[in-house]
Amino acid sequence: MNHIDLLARLAVENQNRIVLLVLDGVGDIRCADQPATALDRAEIPNLDALARASALGRIVPVSTGITPGSGPGHLSLFGYDPTDPEADIGRGVLEALGLGLKIGPDDLAARGNFATVDADGNLIDRRAGRIPTSECERLVEAIQADLSSFDGAEVEVVAGEEHRFVLILRGVGSSAEVDDTDPQKTGVPPLAPHPRTADAEPTATLLADIIARMNAMIADEPKANTVLLRGVSQPPHLPQFSDLYHLRAGAFAGYPLYRGVAGACGMEVVPCGKYFHEIVPTVRENWERFDFFFLHVKQTDKAGEDGNLKAKIEVLEQVDAVLPELLALEPSVLAITGDHSTPAPLASHSWHPVPLLVHSPVCFRDDCQEFTEAAATQGHLGTFPARELMGLLLANAGRLAKFGA
Amino acid sequence: MNHIDLLARLAVENQNRIVLLVLDGVGDIRCADQPATALDRAEIPNLDALARASALGRIVPVSTGITPGSGPGHLSLFGYDPTDPEADIGRGVLEALGLGLKIGPDDLAARGNFATVDADGNLIDRRAGRIPTSECERLVEAIQADLSSFDGAEVEVVAGEEHRFVLILRGVGSSAEVDDTDPQKTGVPPLAPHPRTADAEPTATLLADIIARMNAMIADEPKANTVLLRGVSQPPHLPQFSDLYHLRAGAFAGYPLYRGVAGACGMEVVPCGKYFHEIVPTVRENWERFDFFFLHVKQTDKAGEDGNLKAKIEVLEQVDAVLPELLALEPSVLAITGDHSTPAPLASHSWHPVPLLVHSPVCFRDDCQEFTEAAATQGHLGTFPARELMGLLLANAGRLAKFGA
Repeated sequence: MNHIDLLARLAVENQNRIVLLVLDGVGDIRCADQPATALDRAEIPNLDALARASALGRIVPVSTGITPGSGPGHLSLFGYDPTDPEADIGRGVLEALGLGLKIGPDDLAARGNFATVDADGNLIDRRAGRIPTSECERLVEAIQADLSSFDGAEVEVVAGEEHRFVLILRGVGSSAEVDDTDPQKTGVPPLAPHPRTADAEPTATLLADIIARMNAMIADEPKANTVLLRGVSQPPHLPQFSDLYHLRAGAFAGYPLYRGVAGACGMEVVPCGKYFHEIVPTVRENWERFDFFFLHVKQTDKAGEDGNLKAKIEVLEQVDAVLPELLALEPSVLAITGDHSTPAPLASHSWHPVPLLVHSPVCFRDDCQEFTEAAATQGHLGTFPARELMGLLLANAGRLAKFGA
Repeated sequence: MNHIDLLARLAVENQNRIVLLVLDGVGDIRCADQPATALDRAEIPNLDALARASALGRIVPVSTGITPGSGPGHLSLFGYDPTDPEADIGRGVLEALGLGLKIGPDDLAARGNFATVDADGNLIDRRAGRIPTSECERLVEAIQADLSSFDGAEVEVVAGEEHRFVLILRGVGSSAEVDDTDPQKTGVPPLAPHPRTADAEPTATLLADIIARMNAMIADEPKANTVLLRGVSQPPHLPQFSDLYHLRAGAFAGYPLYRGVAGACGMEVVPCGKYFHEIVPTVRENWERFDFFFLHVKQTDKAGEDGNLKAKIEVLEQVDAVLPELLALEPSVLAITGDHSTPAPLASHSWHPVPLLVHSPVCFRDDCQEFTEAAATQGHLGTFPARELMGLLLANAGRLAKFGA
């Protein structure tokens, strides 16, 4: 039996609360150019003290050597196998979920860009000069007023930041297997929405008509005079947190993608700020509403992606300073880890195992004296696939029945 | 998705070279009679210095407690699941590939022995007194002159060492599911080639006729007056290294079996000597031709099989002395491990996890101070299935794309 099926079979309810704090990309490497990691160097007395009263270990995000994107990295943390085609969440759906929009089984979503074409219809700017968000909102409002339905489909257009928007078509039913219209380069016209399967032909036709209608409406705009669509997709069929784990789960993440993944797993996306010192108070306000709290800190990953070890150290120290506020809520189980490593020397996501800390009254206090990659290598939890982490958290919360008599 | 399918999907090409140095059977055990292993006792300053600048860990050859033969041990290292029936490489094919012979999908191969029967047709020596290789070559030459084709099949007979030869039948098409004719004991006649399935009946008939023809030709020889066949087999359908991993792979192994496995995986078998000090110069001469170099050192296993700890220590020290020549080639990734352990106290292959060293600019320099079984147990790479090693090597070489957005 798969691990997740076993958990679904054994999960029970109780009053114990679980907090999963994801420091995105927290893992790092020691190498010739960087003899110590951000965790090695940061002054994080609260994390280190917690480590001494916790069990440490490491998780492997997908499998040995595989570097995950943010979507697969989080799906693993939440217990799913991200290599399962059923778990493939399209970018359009992710974006829509991240904006807090509901997507039903017959709906489809796409990411949109406003862009600029010249008099010959060739793209000269795929982001319309990054028009201000207010400008985007004005255009979307006009389009939405004109386009609330089209050919039997309910149309919803929602503004994002700068040139970005999300297009949702409700009650379409036909397949979303349609190629992007963004050619990913300038000097050529936007592509037609090409169906990849015969099932998707009605969808492609509908999208082409909607694009033509939008383009006609904005043809006289100085910059945002055309639209590009990407990531046309339908919601994945992921078993939901409440059914799987009997958890009322809340997601506290400041960025759309992470909200999107959490939403697809059945978590309630709670609006909150982007920084840990903003997130923790929102968690406190919602403490009675949930059993499971997913907290996402993006800035560790951002610093790693920028190759900026100093910034990564600073983020860790900021998190450490706020940690006592989170501990004051007295979660039954607190896990701190990342969805993958983002080593500063690589300036990108990587495959390296990610340090994990699990604190609970029954976690096994091992000999690890600090929260670092090297300490975690020696920890009681060992090194295991990230998608088994939920089992460990439920177990520590007393939320799994015994298997067999 | 299986790990190997994931690798095939994500593998990309670049200029980085990977060297996999297999010290056959290198792993050993500490026990009452042997308180320190060969790696513990050997003076290997170069390996130990490399360990300090590398990540260590351990691989499990097949799965917990399973002792692999050399074929399965190497298939795992190369990323395949040796328990998959598709990965079952017959001994005849292994022997033929090891001699550098090509085996097509409609061909079959068998290992042959010249043997001695008495006047009643009963075996008195299954190896014909280990006749000299020159004698074997003389007999094979005569047989080949007579038997270039038989009943529509192209026949190829190739001399091996002493009493051994390989028989290849080309364009047979029918199944190779035919039992050995070697009864594995003396005092009885050779067995008839018995078909295990109805599909294999034509093959069995053909082989019986060929055996009769060969036996008639050598009936008057003083020692080599009959032939025995074993391991009748067809080539496996293994995905090839170039397709799977986008690697131009070269095998540098002094012994036929290892060449055979490497050839079955799509590596080019490069003729080379049997000792590490002979292998490394051949690698250097071919450095521009490949992206992946499989180097095989047999003598560690041989010493273990002989229960000779002293000899195993000496082989390790010889390898250590030549290691700087390999490092001077500056491979992007260098991995050193074994296909299994061959503990001297057991004088045989074993199931114990095998120490692994991975050196690259981004490998994570852990706290291990030497290359030993005990140090590797504490290493950053943890303990993982050998068949995931290729993922780690490709990742360290920057040859895997990110999985998902």
